[in-house]
Amino acid sequence: MAFSPFDSPMFSQLYGDTEVRALFTDSADVRAMLLVEGSLANVQGEMGIIPLESALYIHRSSMEVQIDPAGLAGGMGSAGVPVPALVDAFRKAMEAPEHAQYIHWGATSQDIVDTALILRLRQYLGILDRRLEALIATLTTKAKENRDVVMAARTRSQMSTPTTFGAKIATWVTPLKRHRTRLSELRERLLVVSLAGASGNYAALGSQGREVEAALAKALKLSVAETPWHNARDGLAEFASVLSMITGSLGKIGQDLMLLSQNEIAEVSAGAGGGSSTMPHKANPVSAEVLVTMAQHNANQIGQMHQALVHTNERDGVTWALERLVLPQMCIAGGVALLHAQTLAETLKADPERMLANIIATNGQMMAEAAMFALAEYMPRPEAQALVKACSQTAARTGQNLREVLVGNTDAAVDWDDVFNPANAVGLAGEIVDTL
Amino acid sequence: MAFSPFDSPMFSQLYGDTEVRALFTDSADVRAMLLVEGSLANVQGEMGIIPLESALYIHRSSMEVQIDPAGLAGGMGSAGVPVPALVDAFRKAMEAPEHAQYIHWGATSQDIVDTALILRLRQYLGILDRRLEALIATLTTKAKENRDVVMAARTRSQMSTPTTFGAKIATWVTPLKRHRTRLSELRERLLVVSLAGASGNYAALGSQGREVEAALAKALKLSVAETPWHNARDGLAEFASVLSMITGSLGKIGQDLMLLSQNEIAEVSAGAGGGSSTMPHKANPVSAEVLVTMAQHNANQIGQMHQALVHTNERDGVTWALERLVLPQMCIAGGVALLHAQTLAETLKADPERMLANIIATNGQMMAEAAMFALAEYMPRPEAQALVKACSQTAARTGQNLREVLVGNTDAAVDWDDVFNPANAVGLAGEIVDTL
Amino acid sequence: MAFSPFDSPMFSQLYGDTEVRALFTDSADVRAMLLVEGSLANVQGEMGIIPLESALYIHRSSMEVQIDPAGLAGGMGSAGVPVPALVDAFRKAMEAPEHAQYIHWGATSQDIVDTALILRLRQYLGILDRRLEALIATLTTKAKENRDVVMAARTRSQMSTPTTFGAKIATWVTPLKRHRTRLSELRERLLVVSLAGASGNYAALGSQGREVEAALAKALKLSVAETPWHNARDGLAEFASVLSMITGSLGKIGQDLMLLSQNEIAEVSAGAGGGSSTMPHKANPVSAEVLVTMAQHNANQIGQMHQALVHTNERDGVTWALERLVLPQMCIAGGVALLHAQTLAETLKADPERMLANIIATNGQMMAEAAMFALAEYMPRPEAQALVKACSQTAARTGQNLREVLVGNTDAAVDWDDVFNPANAVGLAGEIVDTL
Amino acid sequence: MAFSPFDSPMFSQLYGDTEVRALFTDSADVRAMLLVEGSLANVQGEMGIIPLESALYIHRSSMEVQIDPAGLAGGMGSAGVPVPALVDAFRKAMEAPEHAQYIHWGATSQDIVDTALILRLRQYLGILDRRLEALIATLTTKAKENRDVVMAARTRSQMSTPTTFGAKIATWVTPLKRHRTRLSELRERLLVVSLAGASGNYAALGSQGREVEAALAKALKLSVAETPWHNARDGLAEFASVLSMITGSLGKIGQDLMLLSQNEIAEVSAGAGGGSSTMPHKANPVSAEVLVTMAQHNANQIGQMHQALVHTNERDGVTWALERLVLPQMCIAGGVALLHAQTLAETLKADPERMLANIIATNGQMMAEAAMFALAEYMPRPEAQALVKACSQTAARTGQNLREVLVGNTDAAVDWDDVFNPANAVGLAGEIVDTL
Repeated sequence: MAFSPFDSPMFSQLYGDTEVRALFTDSADVRAMLLVEGSLANVQGEMGIIPLESALYIHRSSMEVQIDPAGLAGGMGSAGVPVPALVDAFRKAMEAPEHAQYIHWGATSQDIVDTALILRLRQYLGILDRRLEALIATLTTKAKENRDVVMAARTRSQMSTPTTFGAKIATWVTPLKRHRTRLSELRERLLVVSLAGASGNYAALGSQGREVEAALAKALKLSVAETPWHNARDGLAEFASVLSMITGSLGKIGQDLMLLSQNEIAEVSAGAGGGSSTMPHKANPVSAEVLVTMAQHNANQIGQMHQALVHTNERDGVTWALERLVLPQMCIAGGVALLHAQTLAETLKADPERMLANIIATNGQMMAEAAMFALAEYMPRPEAQALVKACSQTAARTGQNLREVLVGNTDAAVDWDDVFNPANAVGLAGEIVDTL
Repeated sequence: MAFSPFDSPMFSQLYGDTEVRALFTDSADVRAMLLVEGSLANVQGEMGIIPLESALYIHRSSMEVQIDPAGLAGGMGSAGVPVPALVDAFRKAMEAPEHAQYIHWGATSQDIVDTALILRLRQYLGILDRRLEALIATLTTKAKENRDVVMAARTRSQMSTPTTFGAKIATWVTPLKRHRTRLSELRERLLVVSLAGASGNYAALGSQGREVEAALAKALKLSVAETPWHNARDGLAEFASVLSMITGSLGKIGQDLMLLSQNEIAEVSAGAGGGSSTMPHKANPVSAEVLVTMAQHNANQIGQMHQALVHTNERDGVTWALERLVLPQMCIAGGVALLHAQTLAETLKADPERMLANIIATNGQMMAEAAMFALAEYMPRPEAQALVKACSQTAARTGQNLREVLVGNTDAAVDWDDVFNPANAVGLAGEIVDTL
Repeated sequence: MAFSPFDSPMFSQLYGDTEVRALFTDSADVRAMLLVEGSLANVQGEMGIIPLESALYIHRSSMEVQIDPAGLAGGMGSAGVPVPALVDAFRKAMEAPEHAQYIHWGATSQDIVDTALILRLRQYLGILDRRLEALIATLTTKAKENRDVVMAARTRSQMSTPTTFGAKIATWVTPLKRHRTRLSELRERLLVVSLAGASGNYAALGSQGREVEAALAKALKLSVAETPWHNARDGLAEFASVLSMITGSLGKIGQDLMLLSQNEIAEVSAGAGGGSSTMPHKANPVSAEVLVTMAQHNANQIGQMHQALVHTNERDGVTWALERLVLPQMCIAGGVALLHAQTLAETLKADPERMLANIIATNGQMMAEAAMFALAEYMPRPEAQALVKACSQTAARTGQNLREVLVGNTDAAVDWDDVFNPANAVGLAGEIVDTL
Repeated sequence: MAFSPFDSPMFSQLYGDTEVRALFTDSADVRAMLLVEGSLANVQGEMGIIPLESALYIHRSSMEVQIDPAGLAGGMGSAGVPVPALVDAFRKAMEAPEHAQYIHWGATSQDIVDTALILRLRQYLGILDRRLEALIATLTTKAKENRDVVMAARTRSQMSTPTTFGAKIATWVTPLKRHRTRLSELRERLLVVSLAGASGNYAALGSQGREVEAALAKALKLSVAETPWHNARDGLAEFASVLSMITGSLGKIGQDLMLLSQNEIAEVSAGAGGGSSTMPHKANPVSAEVLVTMAQHNANQIGQMHQALVHTNERDGVTWALERLVLPQMCIAGGVALLHAQTLAETLKADPERMLANIIATNGQMMAEAAMFALAEYMPRPEAQALVKACSQTAARTGQNLREVLVGNTDAAVDWDDVFNPANAVGLAGEIVDTL
């Protein structure tokens, strides 16, 4: 069983996440649907809509009954939705037809499936938030530890000017903080009960429909949407979008780590490093690769969640299935990425000497901007720019250090020691870290 | 010039939006970049970082200078970014080298391009919000007007049970309301200035970097991000996601309209209807098609904005370009969809007689659920369900009306007139409208 | 274990495909990798590269050894690829270190994984082609059976002019025929062995590298690529593209079936129809929904396979993983779609009376084009067009039949019986069927 | 006018392609549609379907008439398709109503638009093929020139073992050759005329429909599809897929160039290198960035073309528009990528000394595999592997050269000079080049 590596035992230690997996098994799905059916009966019993005794019986049974998900496959196959088979199996298992008739009273299949999904997404939101919090804490510590560790910034794949490793880490952290804010903002929009019945107007619940809905929401600690959401899937699309954004921000960390751990750069190490069978010196950046992979994967899946917004009429079997095909996978991809990110963060280690060596290896070229700004105090900036550019080209051609060439081409009283000290050219990198 | 129909004069009345277009012309881009450069000089002059006289000169010139965007093509081609050529052209146009040297002081090209984009996205946010507000108002009016207009609900492409057109419209409206909330929540995260310089640490601005940034933000009425966002693109990805969600929710309206205006259903009309050259009776649902098209299109583009989150190191020329290739198109797609949606909303017209006729044409089958609930007061629900199902199948086979078959198969004292009156089977459809 | 519904027992009768599943289990993967390792040893033994006795021992063991895929999870987790752990497990299981040392001689992990994938894709190609052939045969029969069954064509969601159901089915068939051609064309490009070693230049195989590759290819009945394809993934991208196109063409069939089986149209039935728990009259088009769902899903996944073409340097852990995350799912989606399509095709049934009734219900409007062409023999075509358009509008306004209105507005000697007989207005629909 | 940078004068030298642009202007579209209308009249005249004089008049006029595309905007807006307005404008411009009435005889708008697109795609296919041929030639020359230039291979972002630059270039070339084959294979499937009329059954053309179609195809030098293809879009989806694959393969070249031109690697240069306003030493890899950008962009667009396969019933206004929104942009992206790729290929220059220096900088670690194979002649391979791994770790820890450590830990009579000469460890890299 491995069309998805996420569902493969063989891939479980690479793409596995025990905690998230527990939310998305068939059993967890069935368990959550039973919880919804049981709670629904309970509130309907309390409201006198169904006999109290039946309600209590159903509710208790819903917690005790054992229903094999695989046993629902036939019903799922013929109906395209598991609830009719689940309700049948539940009724049979109760062995009390006088009570069992009140199961699923006034609900439609989609109400049960959607609410059961939301219950598990609530748990998932908790996992996300807790992991993000931990990751932010770890990375913040790392940023502070590396506050003044000077390294080359790199823009458009080229070395630009000096910065610090702390400042780099800081720009990894702040998107994650914003993602936590986003998750808290979408929470109430996402965590809503569904109970509007076949055509989304509570017809089968009688005049008390909205009260039952409110009571079920209260029982399940969910909110109530302004209008039924069978065909208004923006809550799910929004959640999936933020989830993909989280994975994307982690992918950026992974990509940076891959680039910085290239043998020729070798400024940063993180994670264990996967061995090669025939190249003992290699340390493949397995976890960093996973971050980028999950980011690209979720970025590819997110479109399908947006397409599912075109949910036709009152309920739509196609767009609903489109969600089902990608959302659980997006959740595991996000979970896996966070696990790997945490490991990488905890083991993140800079090599300050190598960082400095890489800067020095540019023969002073990386300090060109600093030199230009220093010279601009003695001449118009365009002139300074032109002078530095010419010297930079000469240096590159002759293999000389830029400093030497500059000294030979200007008598401006620049403090060259100061200019060519990378630590003096990192701007407010330290302050950036301090804002965390 | 029409690789994109959005940029084609020939398509301009189908996919055009004059107001949005004005924000995304090359001229608007250049104008916004000059505004940023001029404002930057101004605040730097006030802070004493550059000579005040030069600052004022630059600032004034930035508002007056005429720079032909096409003239920047060469520089854009060689640098992959328009700013160096723009700065050159601006300097030349000023004809005052002693002042011109202070243009672009301490900034990097990406600062200018990004801030100029944000300024225009702010205007676009205003357009979005205003149009959403108007659309919500129009649709709410239509929902109230059609509060009690009975029609068939349709689920999984089949007629289910009665509902009202008002309730259907209501479920179109509430996602739009939530989108306005989302836009207001993301506003401050999106509308941030960029001024962190080449490597994202303000190095070229000296120790006052963050003060200059704050002053520029104030001048432009933007916010300041916690850390520089050259490589943290979550604000843009979030905005694009909500934009695609808006387009998706409009696509759902369009798809419903297309389905409901099929000749065989013909319950709703909206918009002008495109004529056919050879089939004079046809009224192609041109505007509704546009809504679905824009929804699917933006759902396809959104992934690219998420991929752009994997923005490597301090600045990344590839992922930055990925944004540039899709974001303006997504904005126009959203704008166009809102224009067509407004037209459709204003001309939206139900045909209540046809709606009723379509229900009646089902020979009572649509009232099966209502019959079952009515019978369930006289027998256990599963029994009622089985009875109705059997009668329903008999009716379908014989062509009889379900009511007749039921009456012939039970002597339960059901008020059949009541049960088979569709208006009695719409549940809380009216109340759903009343919540708007 | 159900992040993907394709891997869920509960969904197995909806999204299941026993035959395809057998190719993509962890066990099948391990088995295929062992087959590659065993065959490699065999050809290397025959060529004298490794001791013949060891080769034979390895080859025999590769067919007999039992390796639990779950036992490879640890190695997979640390290396990001299963082969090192597999080779270790294989060596241990052989209990003959003197021979075991020659396992995996000169290969790199990716060689084994890729070749093992190709072997299974070859089986999958066979399944695809066989199912396409059967589906084409069934649909061709249905097209011929319905050659002259008149129905309304529908364009841009509106009824246009008459056609036949046979002609409609014919346009479902010909893309499938083209897909078979495409599969046969890509076959040799896809079914290639990989054996180029760590850096893609056969270095570990010595000077006989290409001979070993050729011999392994022969043993496995595969082809040899012109140059090693570790980092040239166009064969896989092409295959996935055609697979997605197949699923797309089936989605078109499913969408047509959903539209034609709407209660208000009800011209076609196919498949069993999923029941509703509370609406006994409904027959949800479960299988047709699956066709559309799979089409949209694969259309969403295909982009990831194309992104994986940007496979960096000699081998790339990220883009390689991107393929792994979507290709098996695309294969099952295609397989599932073909299974449902076959069922739908076999049970496809037109309702010719209803088809005619739907045409008649347009009050002659559908024959407007035919009327115009008939009139054009008596007046210039634009004049005929204008006359028909005017009469068509009158008819629509007054509820009259278009024929009546026309007769009252022209004395052209048109044979109106002939013109208003839909069967006379289907053009070459019959001939279209005959080309199949 | 710049929602798409492809349509922006300001971006024209970065994302411009004069030759491709000429095919996709509004004018080119109108011109091609007129060509179809004119040719249609011509063949209908020859067949006696319309008066020969009118046919000749229409045909001649179609080549002479000047129709302003912008003037069609109104008609396009109301019909969602430009043809009715075009036909009107053409008729008016002809000033000969007696002939003008025969324009567009028996065709539907989609016939004209689709055939006009195909005519331009034929020209585009020619451009693609010619450019691919030139690029293959240039890269083959470069591969041969660099046949024996030793460099480090890199796998999973780490240095692996030596290879040659020639072998690397060779793996860039062979996918391009396969793409040419693919283009030639799809050619006949793509280049087909459309003339099946409103409902796809030639009804308006009378019994001679297929003959007219064949004659028009002959006149336009196109093929005829087995059945009408209004709703069978696999030809376009296939073409777009191969186009995206071409762009993807070019993206791989671009990504390799970006990685190899990082300052810390600096083994390869190509293209001009975009300057930075404040960092004179930088040479941003502008053209290489464009290759990756276009690859990712087309990979993102391709899904929309596949979704458009779910083209409902006889003709579908939504999916048709989905194609229109992305296909021209994909064509320009492919064209632009080929232009930049050619420039990069022509200026591609290796730095063999730096390549060697980078290998040497690994302190012999890159030769570990070679050492292991050498030692495996003196001991079982697992033992050799273990020895090398231990020595490699020692070397890494102590900073010694691997060779020294090995010599100190074994007395196997290995020819270490030979083993540690990278040129001896490139396997069949040269032969790989020779296959081109």
